[in-house]
Amino acid sequence: MDSQRSIYLKTISIDEALEKVLEEITPASLPGRESVPSQQALGRVTAGPVRARYSSPTFHSAAMDGVAVRAESTFTAREDNPVILEKGRDYVEINTGNPIPDGMDSVIMVEKINQEYEHSISIEQPAYPWQNVRRIGEDIVATELLLPRNHEISAYDIGVLLSGGIWEVDVYQQVGIHVIPTGDEVLDFTSRPDPSPGQVIESNSQVLAAMAQSWGCRFSRTAPVPDEPQKLEKALQEALDSQAHIVVIGAGSSAGSKDFTRRIIQEKGRLLVHGLKAMPGKPTVLGISHNNKILVGAPGYPVSSVICFEQILKPLVYHLSGKTPEEPVTVEARLTRKIPSRLGMEEFLRVSVGRVGEQYVATPLPRGAGMMTTLTKAQGMTRIPADLEGMQQDRMIEVQLLRRSREVNQVLVTVGSHDNTVDFLANELALFNPPVRLASTHVGSMGGITAIRRGTAHMAGIHLFDPETGDYNFPFLDKYAPDLDYRLINLAVRHQGLMVLPGNPRNIRSLQDLPRDDVEFVNRQKGAGTRILLDHHLQQADISPEKVKGYSNEEYTHMGIAVNVLSRTADCGLGIKAAAQALGLDFVPLARERYDLLIPEDFIQDDKVVQVMNLLHSRDFKAGIESLGGYETTLTGREMKPGMGL
Amino acid sequence: MDSQRSIYLKTISIDEALEKVLEEITPASLPGRESVPSQQALGRVTAGPVRARYSSPTFHSAAMDGVAVRAESTFTAREDNPVILEKGRDYVEINTGNPIPDGMDSVIMVEKINQEYEHSISIEQPAYPWQNVRRIGEDIVATELLLPRNHEISAYDIGVLLSGGIWEVDVYQQVGIHVIPTGDEVLDFTSRPDPSPGQVIESNSQVLAAMAQSWGCRFSRTAPVPDEPQKLEKALQEALDSQAHIVVIGAGSSAGSKDFTRRIIQEKGRLLVHGLKAMPGKPTVLGISHNNKILVGAPGYPVSSVICFEQILKPLVYHLSGKTPEEPVTVEARLTRKIPSRLGMEEFLRVSVGRVGEQYVATPLPRGAGMMTTLTKAQGMTRIPADLEGMQQDRMIEVQLLRRSREVNQVLVTVGSHDNTVDFLANELALFNPPVRLASTHVGSMGGITAIRRGTAHMAGIHLFDPETGDYNFPFLDKYAPDLDYRLINLAVRHQGLMVLPGNPRNIRSLQDLPRDDVEFVNRQKGAGTRILLDHHLQQADISPEKVKGYSNEEYTHMGIAVNVLSRTADCGLGIKAAAQALGLDFVPLARERYDLLIPEDFIQDDKVVQVMNLLHSRDFKAGIESLGGYETTLTGREMKPGMGL
Repeated sequence: MDSQRSIYLKTISIDEALEKVLEEITPASLPGRESVPSQQALGRVTAGPVRARYSSPTFHSAAMDGVAVRAESTFTAREDNPVILEKGRDYVEINTGNPIPDGMDSVIMVEKINQEYEHSISIEQPAYPWQNVRRIGEDIVATELLLPRNHEISAYDIGVLLSGGIWEVDVYQQVGIHVIPTGDEVLDFTSRPDPSPGQVIESNSQVLAAMAQSWGCRFSRTAPVPDEPQKLEKALQEALDSQAHIVVIGAGSSAGSKDFTRRIIQEKGRLLVHGLKAMPGKPTVLGISHNNKILVGAPGYPVSSVICFEQILKPLVYHLSGKTPEEPVTVEARLTRKIPSRLGMEEFLRVSVGRVGEQYVATPLPRGAGMMTTLTKAQGMTRIPADLEGMQQDRMIEVQLLRRSREVNQVLVTVGSHDNTVDFLANELALFNPPVRLASTHVGSMGGITAIRRGTAHMAGIHLFDPETGDYNFPFLDKYAPDLDYRLINLAVRHQGLMVLPGNPRNIRSLQDLPRDDVEFVNRQKGAGTRILLDHHLQQADISPEKVKGYSNEEYTHMGIAVNVLSRTADCGLGIKAAAQALGLDFVPLARERYDLLIPEDFIQDDKVVQVMNLLHSRDFKAGIESLGGYETTLTGREMKPGMGL
Repeated sequence: MDSQRSIYLKTISIDEALEKVLEEITPASLPGRESVPSQQALGRVTAGPVRARYSSPTFHSAAMDGVAVRAESTFTAREDNPVILEKGRDYVEINTGNPIPDGMDSVIMVEKINQEYEHSISIEQPAYPWQNVRRIGEDIVATELLLPRNHEISAYDIGVLLSGGIWEVDVYQQVGIHVIPTGDEVLDFTSRPDPSPGQVIESNSQVLAAMAQSWGCRFSRTAPVPDEPQKLEKALQEALDSQAHIVVIGAGSSAGSKDFTRRIIQEKGRLLVHGLKAMPGKPTVLGISHNNKILVGAPGYPVSSVICFEQILKPLVYHLSGKTPEEPVTVEARLTRKIPSRLGMEEFLRVSVGRVGEQYVATPLPRGAGMMTTLTKAQGMTRIPADLEGMQQDRMIEVQLLRRSREVNQVLVTVGSHDNTVDFLANELALFNPPVRLASTHVGSMGGITAIRRGTAHMAGIHLFDPETGDYNFPFLDKYAPDLDYRLINLAVRHQGLMVLPGNPRNIRSLQDLPRDDVEFVNRQKGAGTRILLDHHLQQADISPEKVKGYSNEEYTHMGIAVNVLSRTADCGLGIKAAAQALGLDFVPLARERYDLLIPEDFIQDDKVVQVMNLLHSRDFKAGIESLGGYETTLTGREMKPGMGL
């Protein structure tokens, strides 16, 4: 720990941080100008006004197909008194775009012409001068302002430029971003490495590269630099000597790494910001080099770095580019779960967003700066202001949509107990056109019932076994959701048992082995159906939970249990066979159980739910579930009734 | 004219046309699959599900900086009963991301630690197991579904792929679009030609190239092909033999050209659609080749071709790509002018959109398929359904925004009489950050007063001279807008006179020359201040308008008058010196007049108007106006009062 860290600049808000940097930007920091061929100028920003060289069109031309005439010669034409015109003398056939012949000043469209003989026509209404004629300069007049300065060139603009004879256009140079990832533990993805424990594959630079591409920037990267001050100094100096306008140093995870960034910024320039009052994104460092380049020390953790890229880098890039970023699309959504929050920190929380009934519903995804998966499964993001200590369940929040509205409407909000069949369902639903996106939140079976009752989910996966009745789910629904109109549809019958290492080294045969001193267990969270099943069987076996080492260690998913066993953090845990299989673990069967989908009557006709039902009845889908291993599909798709049991 | 044209397929709506083409698309039409490096996969669509190879992280790691401990050893810690921990034995210093040492299971953050001596610390609250620990697989679990099939890869997804050791990803190949522009009159822009009368520079292919780039397509183009069937057949065959999925033939303007397209499509495939019930865009032809490529005959006129690209090509491309296009952003806006419309045709009308007071205001831009400028000056577009014969002024219409909302709020809606100083003002306003976009509609001074009265514009440029009082604008405002609260601010004093060819070949000295038989005049539209000025001076000179040849020929702008004179369509016209100068014309001065800005009191404090006022008072701005030639700035920026005159 570096106890000197606290004597440096205190953390500030993102807005204040941006201000500090913008204050330092002088013309020396800005991209220069360059000339590019007009047809390659999409998205570029004009550095000066562009005026037309030619008028367009350069001649009076026909706006339609028909005949060109002298309007005067038609003035007496009426329905009851048609005028006959002679080819050559009175009219000339003409097509759209052709020049109007001298002496003519009007075009009569072909539909208004009656062919009399081969060389004469009659008309029944007069033409007026300039009728159907596209006149000189009607589109563009020479010297007219085509595009102002600081204008982002669109596809249409390119057409105007080329039509107007503007072959090249003066634009601002693209902003250049150069990234230097650092850290002893960081591996270069280009070598396609197999990471050892303690190592991570560097990926933040490529996330930024993709963002930079969409922002219209040039991008370059140094291969990852280890935590050696001399090597970092050399890499940074090379970047400062390059054409980049912004240099990003990606932090590694050691304390030394973060300190290097701060020190090197102070050496090569001035430190402006040391830490943001933002989560994720806190360990962001900002400065300006002696040669006027913006220096950014980005956090190493993917979600933290993304906040740094989106909230700090993007506004800076747009400022340097002279572009205006798009307004984010926001909706009001109901929070399905309370969120604790830290006072004094602005938090950026990724959420899953769907439409349930009339409302948008936002479900927080797992938090924590390492949750890269969060970034790919979130349809929205919400900002929790620094002065709030948390947000209550059911509160309406403003959510910035990260996915398009149409996609949000296609989100099937599912809460409850996690199961691999839900992942399988998700993949199959994604094949529909348009795709249905399953947003699943793992809150356990009881959490699922609660969400359905509150109208904040379309569907819940539950598998609550009631030891007293021997029935599944209905007893709990009667008790906790007595007024709910719903249907219970079976998704699959699952095999639950103890997951152990291959070869079962601890020789765990049944629950009787759990109280052993040399056996470490890992449990599911309170409220999970699997935990209820465990408690039931422990009770039947007359084993007290306190005697089970690790009973209070909780995981939230079957895969989480499996991973604990695989990594020898625990010796066994209760879960489904599919999870054991996925990680090559052995499986000691314990029980079969029903995994059902709880669907409110209100959503039975929802297109997305209908598609789920279709899948559940499809032979291919059932075969796919069976092939996961540890499942039976004899009840799949059938509506369950009270007392059916298993 | 080809009278046989009417026996082919009848025109259909765009929706029907798309259906017809989509019905014909078989797997043979679709792009295949390919493997691309993950870091290059932005915007690509996954061809299959992608599962994680590794778990991430691969070890339990610290989620924060602090010390790693065994949670159990801290259970008794309280504020009044701190626990002392010894370095090495009880705790290990650790930084975010480092592996948790064996035997430890918890991390206490640095802020909660009190340093006792160099090797011991005390804590005042217990740690729980797994506190601040990022556990194995917490982010990504091996074999977990990372991305489903048919998923458009985002920047975040790239991070997930690389972190998860997925170096390449299976995606659909990009859709290939190949364009063949045709037409004898069409010039290849790559040769930077100077067009002669009758020729146009081919630009539609590059508008489509830019759109294709934003749609994620590959794009290629044949150099323009003349109207010779054999050459077109050869070019088309080469395109059909290529990797393109869609081949676009850009029509030239001759009747032969359009017919070639239809015939060649029937030769190389099947004709599906021949003409759309859409304006612009009507002459669109669609077909499918024998080898399953989509064939599109696009109109030659820029605005028509753009409708074809946006309304037909884009949906087809997205369908082939497996992507979902974004929902367009739409607003309700009040129409400032009535629009006539053709029954039976769906019309796509480009409009200028600004916010005036609380409402969005849409002003139709000039129509006509050649109006490329329309495409660059429109903030929005509205669709007029086929069953409407027009829309009334003040009607609320749905407008699709083509520019971002923030830009619409920056639009200063100006109507009235056109002047070059307004263009100059537009350029200067565009330099502000964010830029202010002047949307100016030329409806003449009276049209300007009407718009202000109706609350559909921020500002109006007017220059109405009242011969009776010798005053400008106020007499008209008293009469036509008696209840309006407004200010009248001078923009400039202009010199008006007769524009003639250099050297004044017709020897036009004054209005007395206008009744001459050999002098053709060109006028401004009714209601224009310039026309009122003309009528005043004609009356003073006792010249009857009927005696002036060309009096009823109307142009809408000063530049339009100038261009008429330059092209010898007319011998002279009344206008401002600036316009004459711009085109190198001679100028016979007639009068000076005031050009004022009418601004409702409600908008005087509007940021955009304040910026206009700042400019009007700026020395640089006034110098800029003077340098245009034909202007005086002695009154610029001053508030005018009744009776001031000039």
